[in-house]
Amino acid sequence: MKLYDYPGAPNPRRVKIFIAEKALDIEIINCDMSKGEHKTPGFLEKNPSGKIPVLELDDGRCIPESFAICRYLEAICPEPNLFGRDPFEQAFIEARNRMIEFELWSQIGTSWVNGPIVARMGLFKQIPEAKAASDRHVERYYERLNREFADSKWVAGDRYTIADISLLTAIDFAAAMVSLKPDASLKHLWRWHEQVSSRPATQV
Amino acid sequence: MKLYDYPGAPNPRRVKIFIAEKALDIEIINCDMSKGEHKTPGFLEKNPSGKIPVLELDDGRCIPESFAICRYLEAICPEPNLFGRDPFEQAFIEARNRMIEFELWSQIGTSWVNGPIVARMGLFKQIPEAKAASDRHVERYYERLNREFADSKWVAGDRYTIADISLLTAIDFAAAMVSLKPDASLKHLWRWHEQVSSRPATQV
Repeated sequence: MKLYDYPGAPNPRRVKIFIAEKALDIEIINCDMSKGEHKTPGFLEKNPSGKIPVLELDDGRCIPESFAICRYLEAICPEPNLFGRDPFEQAFIEARNRMIEFELWSQIGTSWVNGPIVARMGLFKQIPEAKAASDRHVERYYERLNREFADSKWVAGDRYTIADISLLTAIDFAAAMVSLKPDASLKHLWRWHEQVSSRPATQV
Repeated sequence: MKLYDYPGAPNPRRVKIFIAEKALDIEIINCDMSKGEHKTPGFLEKNPSGKIPVLELDDGRCIPESFAICRYLEAICPEPNLFGRDPFEQAFIEARNRMIEFELWSQIGTSWVNGPIVARMGLFKQIPEAKAASDRHVERYYERLNREFADSKWVAGDRYTIADISLLTAIDFAAAMVSLKPDASLKHLWRWHEQVSSRPATQV
């Protein structure tokens, strides 16, 4: 199997952490987005959305979308379990993961496409008002997470799961690339961040 | 089991279609969003995001997020299969579903919160430029779907799945509530729409 990656991009990092947690041996291929390699006809056959990551199986079939790739890897390599062990836990972890994606990650994305790095690329018309709104949403979501982590050690239930990997990659990208680092006063959120960041698998 | 619903909202409709496909008997509870019932302390215990739908199990445990609810129902009632039968098909359906959610549904959402109905509610500061951009993204995505449906009968692979339910509810909401009806010239998209709309389960 091969994983199409671009260093620094948050969605492939999610899969790379997942791969490290499972100790899988998967070839990493650099898809150079700066040269538009993710928009070539050949790559669009692998993923019609023209995005990374993509997992290519040995028979040539492709799976796009980081979360779907991780679910495939969980199915073929069930341990350590990161998606839940029974129908309720699986649904609960997925629900928590979706909150992170739709209520935090999507807002970070709006701030990113309307921020200075993307502005310099000249790809999108900038909407500063949209960035101001999404910045506020991100800060409010960090405050909500801080309240939740006062009572819970992990994002979904009482153990480390795919939802923690999603949150870590979102926050690290927001802090490094979008100037949206959680405020130092959010102690419970930072306690969680330190705990997850100390895992060997997250050093990618 | 009980499902917290609000008539006309697209995410609960997704679950109601799924329930009808599985012929499950689940009590529907009206959570009156116009009265703010989704933001009461009692409801926030069921779903800290204050959103519908929520599935409440007989033992009181709750699952928010429509897609996570559907996955739970698939696990406890596997037939007819709507999430995939093997690891590759499961991941592929999920990937296609995520494209609908992140590349179409999220843009419809931006157009909705910046559109006239939400403006009259006075809940959000309106950003007309953001709506203009998301309207364009939606129209472009409809064109992409039309090209894809020229060669494929369904959203994900060769059969009806959860990804078709997601797309139907997104388009029907966009057409009815956001003035984003696909153009009549998109014949392959409308062929797909007619085919899915004719299923008895989608009459909710």
